Order: sequence, then C-alpha cells, then structure tokens
Amino acid sequence: MSGNSIGKEFVVKCFGESHGKCISVVIDGCPAGLPLTERDLQAELDKRRPGISKIVSQRFEEDKAEIISGIFKGFTTGAPLGMLVWNKEVDSTPYEAIKHTPRPGHADYPAFVKYGGFRDYRGGGRFSGRITAAFVMAGAVAKKLLATRKIEVLAHTVEIGGVKIIRKPTINEIKRNVYMNPVRCANLKVAGKMEKAILNAKREGDSVGGIVECVATNVPVGVGSPVFDSLDADIAKILFDIPAVKGVEFGAGFEVAWLRGSENNDAYAIRGGKIVTLTNNAGGILGGLSSGMPIVVRAAFKPTPSINKKQRTVDLRKMKETEIKIAGKHDPCIVPRAVPVLESCVAIVLVDHMLRDHMIPKVL
Amino acid sequence: MSGNSIGKEFVVKCFGESHGKCISVVIDGCPAGLPLTERDLQAELDKRRPGISKIVSQRFEEDKAEIISGIFKGFTTGAPLGMLVWNKEVDSTPYEAIKHTPRPGHADYPAFVKYGGFRDYRGGGRFSGRITAAFVMAGAVAKKLLATRKIEVLAHTVEIGGVKIIRKPTINEIKRNVYMNPVRCANLKVAGKMEKAILNAKREGDSVGGIVECVATNVPVGVGSPVFDSLDADIAKILFDIPAVKGVEFGAGFEVAWLRGSENNDAYAIRGGKIVTLTNNAGGILGGLSSGMPIVVRAAFKPTPSINKKQRTVDLRKMKETEIKIAGKHDPCIVPRAVPVLESCVAIVLVDHMLRDHMIPKVL
Amino acid sequence: MSGNSIGKEFVVKCFGESHGKCISVVIDGCPAGLPLTERDLQAELDKRRPGISKIVSQRFEEDKAEIISGIFKGFTTGAPLGMLVWNKEVDSTPYEAIKHTPRPGHADYPAFVKYGGFRDYRGGGRFSGRITAAFVMAGAVAKKLLATRKIEVLAHTVEIGGVKIIRKPTINEIKRNVYMNPVRCANLKVAGKMEKAILNAKREGDSVGGIVECVATNVPVGVGSPVFDSLDADIAKILFDIPAVKGVEFGAGFEVAWLRGSENNDAYAIRGGKIVTLTNNAGGILGGLSSGMPIVVRAAFKPTPSINKKQRTVDLRKMKETEIKIAGKHDPCIVPRAVPVLESCVAIVLVDHMLRDHMIPKVL
Amino acid sequence: MSGNSIGKEFVVKCFGESHGKCISVVIDGCPAGLPLTERDLQAELDKRRPGISKIVSQRFEEDKAEIISGIFKGFTTGAPLGMLVWNKEVDSTPYEAIKHTPRPGHADYPAFVKYGGFRDYRGGGRFSGRITAAFVMAGAVAKKLLATRKIEVLAHTVEIGGVKIIRKPTINEIKRNVYMNPVRCANLKVAGKMEKAILNAKREGDSVGGIVECVATNVPVGVGSPVFDSLDADIAKILFDIPAVKGVEFGAGFEVAWLRGSENNDAYAIRGGKIVTLTNNAGGILGGLSSGMPIVVRAAFKPTPSINKKQRTVDLRKMKETEIKIAGKHDPCIVPRAVPVLESCVAIVLVDHMLRDHMIPKVL
Repeated sequence: MSGNSIGKEFVVKCFGESHGKCISVVIDGCPAGLPLTERDLQAELDKRRPGISKIVSQRFEEDKAEIISGIFKGFTTGAPLGMLVWNKEVDSTPYEAIKHTPRPGHADYPAFVKYGGFRDYRGGGRFSGRITAAFVMAGAVAKKLLATRKIEVLAHTVEIGGVKIIRKPTINEIKRNVYMNPVRCANLKVAGKMEKAILNAKREGDSVGGIVECVATNVPVGVGSPVFDSLDADIAKILFDIPAVKGVEFGAGFEVAWLRGSENNDAYAIRGGKIVTLTNNAGGILGGLSSGMPIVVRAAFKPTPSINKKQRTVDLRKMKETEIKIAGKHDPCIVPRAVPVLESCVAIVLVDHMLRDHMIPKVL
Repeated sequence: MSGNSIGKEFVVKCFGESHGKCISVVIDGCPAGLPLTERDLQAELDKRRPGISKIVSQRFEEDKAEIISGIFKGFTTGAPLGMLVWNKEVDSTPYEAIKHTPRPGHADYPAFVKYGGFRDYRGGGRFSGRITAAFVMAGAVAKKLLATRKIEVLAHTVEIGGVKIIRKPTINEIKRNVYMNPVRCANLKVAGKMEKAILNAKREGDSVGGIVECVATNVPVGVGSPVFDSLDADIAKILFDIPAVKGVEFGAGFEVAWLRGSENNDAYAIRGGKIVTLTNNAGGILGGLSSGMPIVVRAAFKPTPSINKKQRTVDLRKMKETEIKIAGKHDPCIVPRAVPVLESCVAIVLVDHMLRDHMIPKVL
Repeated sequence: MSGNSIGKEFVVKCFGESHGKCISVVIDGCPAGLPLTERDLQAELDKRRPGISKIVSQRFEEDKAEIISGIFKGFTTGAPLGMLVWNKEVDSTPYEAIKHTPRPGHADYPAFVKYGGFRDYRGGGRFSGRITAAFVMAGAVAKKLLATRKIEVLAHTVEIGGVKIIRKPTINEIKRNVYMNPVRCANLKVAGKMEKAILNAKREGDSVGGIVECVATNVPVGVGSPVFDSLDADIAKILFDIPAVKGVEFGAGFEVAWLRGSENNDAYAIRGGKIVTLTNNAGGILGGLSSGMPIVVRAAFKPTPSINKKQRTVDLRKMKETEIKIAGKHDPCIVPRAVPVLESCVAIVLVDHMLRDHMIPKVL
Repeated sequence: MSGNSIGKEFVVKCFGESHGKCISVVIDGCPAGLPLTERDLQAELDKRRPGISKIVSQRFEEDKAEIISGIFKGFTTGAPLGMLVWNKEVDSTPYEAIKHTPRPGHADYPAFVKYGGFRDYRGGGRFSGRITAAFVMAGAVAKKLLATRKIEVLAHTVEIGGVKIIRKPTINEIKRNVYMNPVRCANLKVAGKMEKAILNAKREGDSVGGIVECVATNVPVGVGSPVFDSLDADIAKILFDIPAVKGVEFGAGFEVAWLRGSENNDAYAIRGGKIVTLTNNAGGILGGLSSGMPIVVRAAFKPTPSINKKQRTVDLRKMKETEIKIAGKHDPCIVPRAVPVLESCVAIVLVDHMLRDHMIPKVL
C-alpha cells in the first residue's frame, strides 16, 4: 500500500502539494453521528498561524477549510470525510532557481533521485511543512471524537533554541497559556525568552529548533496492541512523519539510560478508588498499551533548513559544487506551528486504536 | 489488521509466547532465490546470548532455529518463510504469585485490563523480551538480502547506566569489537566500565538502562515514501515495538533543539564523484527519504523492570495496595541483548522499503 | 483499514456521494512520469454516458473531470493523484419520501440499520451507481499505464434481458463496435435486439439485467500472488464492489460444473515461438496467476431495482407493511453504463498487481 | 503487503507447502476468551476427508491438528493463534518427471515463469489444494466465534458432473444429510447419482467438476462496508482463492441477466415482528451489506486437472511440444472436499467483518 495513508480503522489519507491546487485529506472510518462543520476544522487550522507576529514568515496564508464529502445535515455519515484547503495563488518562480541545486537540510536531493525529473519541486511539493494542514484537519475530527470520551490532547513548547521550560507546567497552565503566546509555551516568562531566541536567530538570517511535548489525559487503560501495533510505536511513527522531527521520546525518555530500575519503575497505588502510578516515567504506556496515566510524548524539531545564509551545495546537472542562498521569507522557527500538529497526530493515533479496541463505537 | 505484523512488501508476522510452545515468525514477501539455512538464523540468534557471562541472567536459554516453510533445496522459494524456536521446558510457577499483583514497569496491569482473565501471564507472555527472538530470525533473513546489495547494518552500545562512549567509533571498530565483549560496545575500555556499572546495579538487586546506536551503510538514495511511510517513521515504529525502548532519535537527534539551522544543515559536496554531505546531522534521512549517507539511529532502553527489590503495587482482585518482590533471575541490563535486535529491526524496514521501491527484485 | 480503498501498490480510495458536492478518487502509488490530462479522464467518463439515447435515464449528467493533485507540467509526479467530478445541483426531495420506506433491491434498509439516522439517503448516497464515476477516473489512469506495456482491457455486453450474443466476437469486433451502439455490444445485430429488450421493459415501467464480459490482452505470465492475492480473486472482489453485480466467472466459468477434466484442461502448445494454450477455459488465470492467455471475465448485473411499479415494502418507523412507487427517471438497464466500469476495474487490479510484481516501474 | 494473508481484523495468514514440513495458519485478531482445543480443529479437518470411500484418492492423509500459540488454559488469549498439521513423509519423486513439463490446468507453467527455478514444485507446493487444510483450521475457529452469535454456516453440493439437485433443500436437510454421504449432497437420492457420475469419470481416467452452495443463517443486518469492502466482494475474493473455483454467484446469481426488476427485487414484509424479504434473490446481500436474510453463495469448481489421460504440453527447457501422463492417484472430483472449505471461507469473512463492525467483541 502506498505511503500517503495512516491508520487501520481511522484511516487518514493525505494528498495535495504546497504550490498545487489544494492540501487535502480524506478520513475513511470516521464513525457516523459526529456533529461537524467547517468551523471545527478552521478553529484548529487557525492555531497553525501564530498570529500577525514578528516571529513567523510574512507570507499571507489564510487556510480556509472546506468539507467536500461525508457530512449530511451537520453530522458525519460514516462515509469518507473529504476535507481540503485550496491553495492561494503563490509565486513559484523562486523554486526554478533551486531546481537542480538541492537546499541543505531539505528533501530536494533524495526526492530528485527518487522521482527523476517528475517531482513537483515548487515550495517543497509533497515534502513541504504545509502538508501538515492536512494533519490538522484530520486532527480536528479526531479531537472531537476523543472529546466524546472526555479525552484531551494538549501540546506545548518546552524548548526553543536552547531555552527550556524547567518546571513542569500543570494541565491548567497548558490550557490557559499555550495559545495565548506566539511560541505556544505554557510558561509565559519562558515564552518571552524563547521569542527572543527566535528573533536573535532571525536577525542573523539563521533559524532555531526546539522540543514540543504532548499530553493526552483520561486515556483508558489498554489502548494499543502488542507487538507491532504498540501505541507508542504508532505515535512515534506519525510524529516522525512530520517534516523536521528528529527525535521522539515518552515519559522519562532518553533519561532512562542513566536511571536505575528502582528509580524508573512507576509504583502502583490506589487513589480515589482508581489504580494509578505514583510517578509516570513510562509516559502512560507500558508494553505498548496505555496504562491509564497521562500519555506524555516529546518530539525534537530541527531548526528550519531554509536560512538566509550562503550554503554549500551541488549542481545536480553539472555535478559541480556550488553555493546557494535561499530567497523568500521563511519561519526562523517552525516549533510554534508544530504544536497543534503534534496534538493532531496524537489524537489521530488514539482514535484509530480506540476504534480497533471497540472503545469508540462506529455509530455515535 | 491486527497488530502482530509489520511491513508491506516484506511482511513479518510474529507469534508465540514466552512460556508457550514456541517463538515463531513468518516472513511473507521474501524474494525467491536467497540461499538460506538454519545456520544463518542460528548465527544471529546466538548474538542475543552474551555468552556465559556474569552480566546476564543464568537461565539456560539455547534457542535453536528451525525453518518450517518457504525453503526448497537450500533457497527461498518466494513462499512464506516460517521460522521458529521451540521453547524449553520452563518453570512458570513463579508467575502464579504475581498473577494479580502487577509488576511495576511491566505490561502486567494494562494487559490484565485489556484481555480480562485470558492473557497468558507466564513469563510476560506476548509482552516478554523473549519475543525479540522472532525479530532476530526475520532480521537474519533481511540482513542476507541487504548483503546482496552490499548494505550493512551494525549496532553498538553507546551508553549503559550513565557510562557513555565519548569518541564516535569507526565502522571498523564497530565490526571488530562489538561482539567481542559482553556489553556490545565498540570501545573496549568503555566496555569494561559499562560492565562494572551493570555489576554494581546487580549487586544491589537493581538494574540499569542504556542507549544503542545502529548504523546502516551503503543504503541507496531515495529509500522511503512521503508522507506517512517515511523511512525514519517506519524505523522508529519498529524500534518502539521492542519492549523497553523509550526514545528514538536520528542523527543529531534531540540536540537539534539547540542547534542553529546553519549548524544543523548538512552541506552538500562531491567526493570521489559521488554527492555526499560534509556532516550527517540528518542521520542519513531527509524528508523521510534516505540521503545516501549512513543511516544513524539511537534507541534508549529503560532499566530492566524486574528487580530484586521490594516494590509497591496493588492486588487487582482485592483492590488493595500491597508490595511485591520479584523472584527468579533476571538480566540486570538488557541493553547488550538489544544490539542484534536493533540491527534486525533496521534491516527489516530497509528490505521492506527497498522491495516497495523495486530496489531488491522479487526473484534474486 | 476502512472500506473505501482498494489495492496495495496502486491504491484507489474513493469518496463523495451521489447528491453531495462531488464524486472523488485518489490514487496513491501511481508511478511518476505518466503524461496525464483531464481530457484522458473525460474520454473514459464520457463512455459511461451512452449518448442522448432512448434507453438511458433523461437526467442531465455531464460529469466534468478535474485533477486536483499529483500532476506537474502534464505528468504524474508519484504523489497521490486527486481527481473529482463536481456534482450538479440536483433535486433530492424525492428521496425524503422514501427515507423510511426502503426501496426493494436497494441498500436502503441495511444502510439504515447500519448507520442509524445519519446516512445520506439522497440518491443512494454512497450506495449509488454514480460512485462508479470514481472507478472510471481511476481506470482511465490504469489503462494509460497498461498501454505503456501494450496491454488492452476491453469490455462488451454479452447478454441483456435474456438476449445473448452467441458467436464469440473477435477482439477487432469488440474494438470496432462496442462504443458505436448504445448497449455496448460487439455484434450490431444482437445490439439491436438488446435495445428492444430494454425498451420493452421500460415501456412496462420495468427493468432488465445482463452480462458484461471483459477481456485483457497481452498480460504477461505470472501476474498475481498465491494464495490470498490471486489475480482472479482480486478481480472478482472489485467487480462485486460494483453495485448490481451478482455473479462473476472466468473462462468457462460455471460451465466447468459439467465439463470433464479432459475437456476443460487447456493443452499447452508452441505457436510463433511462444507458449500458448489451445483453448482458454481457464480464462487466462491458473492457480491465481495469469497464464499469458487473454484474461476473460464475465459479470452478471441485476436489473435496475428502481422501477416505476408499485412494490411492497415496510415503513421503518411505524414497523408496518406498506407500498412504494419510486418517482423520478431511472435507467431501465444499467448494463451499457457498466461496460467502461468493468474495463476500469480490471485495469486497476492489473496495474496494482503488476506494480507489486515490479512489472511496471515506479518511475516511467 | 504480500499475498498469503486475508482479513483486516481477523487476519488469516497461511504458510507451508504440500510436500514441505507442514501446512500452517496463524490467526491474528482472534478475540480472547474463546474455548478452543485441537479437537475443535480436528473435527473440521476430518470433514475434508470423505472417508474410506471409492470416490477419493487412496492417499493416506490423516491430518492431525496442532495448536502452537495463542491458547492458555483452554482459551484463546487474544494473541496470534498458530495452528498446523505436520505433513507425513510423502514420495515427491513423481514430480521430478514433470518439473519442466507443466500439467495442463495446473499452476505449473505460470509459477515456473514467476519464481524462476526456485519454486517448490513437489505436489503443487503452494498451489496445492492441500493448502485448504489451513483454511479449514482457521474456519473452525471462525465457526466457533459465529456460534457465540448463533450464526451457522452450512455448505452442500448442488451439482457434480452435470447431476444437479433440483429442489432447494431445507436447512434441516442440509444439516442432517450433508456429512452423511460421500459427495456432501443434502438430497440423498441425488447424492447417489453424483457418486455414480464421479465413478464413471474415474473409470475413464477422467474427472468431473461441480457446484457447492453455502448458506449462512442468522447473520445480523448491516455486515459489510461500502464500497470496496462489500461483504459479497470479500466472500467472492476468498472463494476465488480456493484452487479450482471458476465462478461465484449470490442469490439468483447469473439468472439476474434475464430477470425483470419486478421479478428480481425482493419485497419487504414483516413476519414475526421482524423485517424480512419475501424472496431472497439478493442472496442476503444488498449494496454490499447483509440484509438479515440468509446469505446464499455458490461456487463452481472445475474438474480436477490431474487426470490419467495423455495430455499435450510443452517441455519448458527444450521449448518443444510434448505429451504428459500424470502418475499417482488423484481425486476424480474435489467437490466433496470443498464443502467444508467453503464453509470455512464464508465463516472467516463473516467474523472479520463482524469484528470490524464491533458485532463480536475483542474479549468474549
């Protein structure tokens, strides 16, 4: 099966190109009976635009969601849900210049080798971060489905350009603060420092990366399947499908490398009549199954590869070394835009697995 | 589709339980014409047993590989390749004691909730690390297929219990040293320290975790598919399917969070008539496609959850808090055993994608 | 995985409803480098409209194909190919009347039970024959791909309302005549009789069924996979996905029930340096693999269930027996429209299997 | 995904060869909590052996079922269910003679072309009818699952060598008579004539084909998915995966070609408080969904291709025409053996779809 589809019961197929006619997504397997309008999608899409802010690219990019199938009288019907945003007229001419000189850090070179002369190189084509608009539309539906089960999926920036959040924020801080500041950080003081880090890089024609954490609360015990459809494995897979992600970790993550078993194991206890663990180093997943504790996952995003600095590259036709300076306006940091994308991805995987586990019905 | 299968063209289905009759694996989609014997499987399986060593559990566990289908006159036929190791008679009685008192850090509790009273709890059942014997048999086949394309997949321990390798080893050091020491480290001095860290933990009835790195060399450009079948996404998925993995990163990994774009981007150059990058922060993968540079991935393994210390847990029938002390002999560190497993996983994903991309023929 | 997708390498996902915004299809896995325009799709779509003819419904239904992704500079790029026809403004009010009184022979009743009150009942929704416009757009692409391998897929009507073609037509007769007459029959005399049979039924407010045969020539030997992805099995599956198909047979088909082995076996011979069989009772498929002989498959189509006669049904809300008379104009026979649909279905399956077998490259 | 697997939630993967070590099957997705023993499998396997009868081959073929995974304390655990029959020592030497001279009507020739010299040609290898032992073991599990929902799947022979059953038997006649006579016919008088037809063919060194019908009763309304996972489509697919099937039809089947809509439409009525149709020309499936009426499907089986008569073929190495006479004992008619296979196939598809539709729980 070809690669533009993910999920088994809640199957998300994405298509469209950065500078093509549209960015689209079809969900096959959405239960019937979910109230859904284009406003639901728009609300999530708008989170990808951190506002008229100094830190994002000045491209005008108002994505307007349209539902083209699967809805009748305001409810999903169980039929495939087609959704898209039409691309605005954009200027693709800058991409002619770099057609044969791959941009470092982008997919240009392997895509050229793989698809011969046929790939759509304008704006990154299928490899553009813009593709994540499709993830977000699907995520909007997934979140609404999870809400029927009282599950929330919340992401927030924990590091940008070396500036980290130290104190773990509460769920309430995340809910209150994240979409109130341009860097999507739950701690407003740290948010200010992150913003500065971005502006510093921007001033120098450079870019910065960062880390986003996503927390899913109220997930029932036992979501996931051993051994190859582990919940963490499927979450990690979709996160690495986001362009720019270079690392994913759950709970204590890479720190487990220096913890003792006695420190890392989460002891069981009973609180309020429910079984809980006293710590959550597992990040809510044990043996590929949800444990009932919050699912906690972090993804590391590399700095935007498009920078306003001269870079070494090669001319693929002449097979000669050369230099490139990327024109146009680019985000000096894509981390803030990634926050709703991460939420969407985690929500999509949760819905898919909960449908497989009969935890969400096929007709609501 | 149910969860015990991975891959699209090279489909690995695994079955069997830790204390059941056997651990088995079927490969559907293996090309015809590969010479294969049980010795090929045995050689890889033996790498999972770090020898009569002080650092591994004293359980006698000689896995003997058997091929039950898909071979004719010493070659694969294109039919599904059935492989298994029969389990030795083992004592499952210790598991009766913990049937209703989940071990912290294990899948016991979510598995109990998910499968009701029906799960096979003996030795972890389907959640046992022993399942990775199936990964390794499939990996043995995948490695042989990759060898026909001159691709090598090599893993090595880079951190155990806080002891890290500092200098990046060469490919030759990895090849020469890894299977010559019980911790599977490419640097023999560091290996000694790692061994000590394990023995210290063991002495205290505790356990340690670590990090394994895997390098795949000579992978052609363009392996992988946008957007949901990215090569890194599929490698990450299978690695998180290994019990105990809590983090996965490629190339610079989580460090990208504090790198500038100008530092992280890998500049292109021409060396020996071939296009290369001068650094490999991308870990050989750009936009989900292989770049032609070595693929570099690291996985963090948590410390073995089975420790010889009293731990807090709950009695699931009585819904009461209680304590548990796990009997039996357990590896104080599973990292060394994970080294061939990591190689197998990466090899399986590479073969699967290369078949999809017609880079390996269906008949050799 | 949800049910609106077919294929493994050439994955056809269809969405949209009869009276919704559009009928759409996305092909994931189409090789890069195929020249493709909307005219290619239109040519096939137009074959579904048997002309301003007395035998088809008088609904105005000019489907205009639009490609919304996957094309760049006139060639496929290897990215998902999005295609659709926008539905014209149609009057859905007649369907309000039958919302709770299922039409005999239609999916109304089981769809009502399955999707509760949420299904889009207008014009049959997802169960409408109109959905096959999506099959035909995907088929147009598949046929162009097969043409690069000199494979042709040709369907023709062999029976309508009891009127049968007796003498097997030649390939040339099929090519010359089928789209020259409104019933899509290769024998023009029989075509006239079939037309009369349709008109007779129409006059009585009734409908007729029929049989369409499809022949694929020049298919290489060995397309298909044992045991569950047999070529005949996959062709049969997609044919039964066409609404109204009630039977499928290959070669001698149901006649094998009274043939002796010595009569039914196709003897091998060498003709023009090539291995052939002297008869083709197998219909070009042996053990699920193509044999090199023409693939011959027939599908039986039931008479259109929408007839202008009073029929017994039930009121689902009142749980009372009642009668229904279906308003509106309906084809008294859908067989002629099914001819290009059958071609499309067979072409889709052939391309999918040939891609799996590396017989069509991923980049042309 | 490679071709030896079928189903999405109840995934049946089959492996093993006719003259290899074993015939095996793994079910991934079987709910936990089903009581299951090897006797359950054996009972179904034994139905494939029509007894020490004159009409079957005299090969001794006592298949003994073994369960190798997925069972604990007599119940399924939700883990993959591994089942196999070990092949007895058999003489494969006759197959050396025909290694390069394909038997007419068998898969020999396309398999030779597809797999080069690597295929296992002994006894048909993967193309042998013996593979259906795997279908039957999986079917035994599926039937037990359906029985928990009071669904029965019953097959019976309706035609052999031109001898047909005329009067439709009742469900009770099918239950009482089918496994009481060697041809598996519900009408004992017709059974006698069928037996004679087989013996006549056998005497002449020839073989006969036939038709088997399968009826599934008590299937709930709404099983199946539009448009590509129609219930009829999935049943047809698995039936065509049975070697020797050349045609499949539901309900009125090919007869719909000459029925009028007013004759073919099944009128709705209420009987005993339930919605029924007064006829069942649809064979229990409308628009790809079960209608609540019995599912009725028929499959046509070709006469056994292995006959004791001289046949024309070619020598593939010398590329010369030649003749062949197949040695060994072969069934002159495989139809009786196909009866439990058909039941198994229909049961497998029903369980798979009912799991997808949440009509069978994941834990019983």
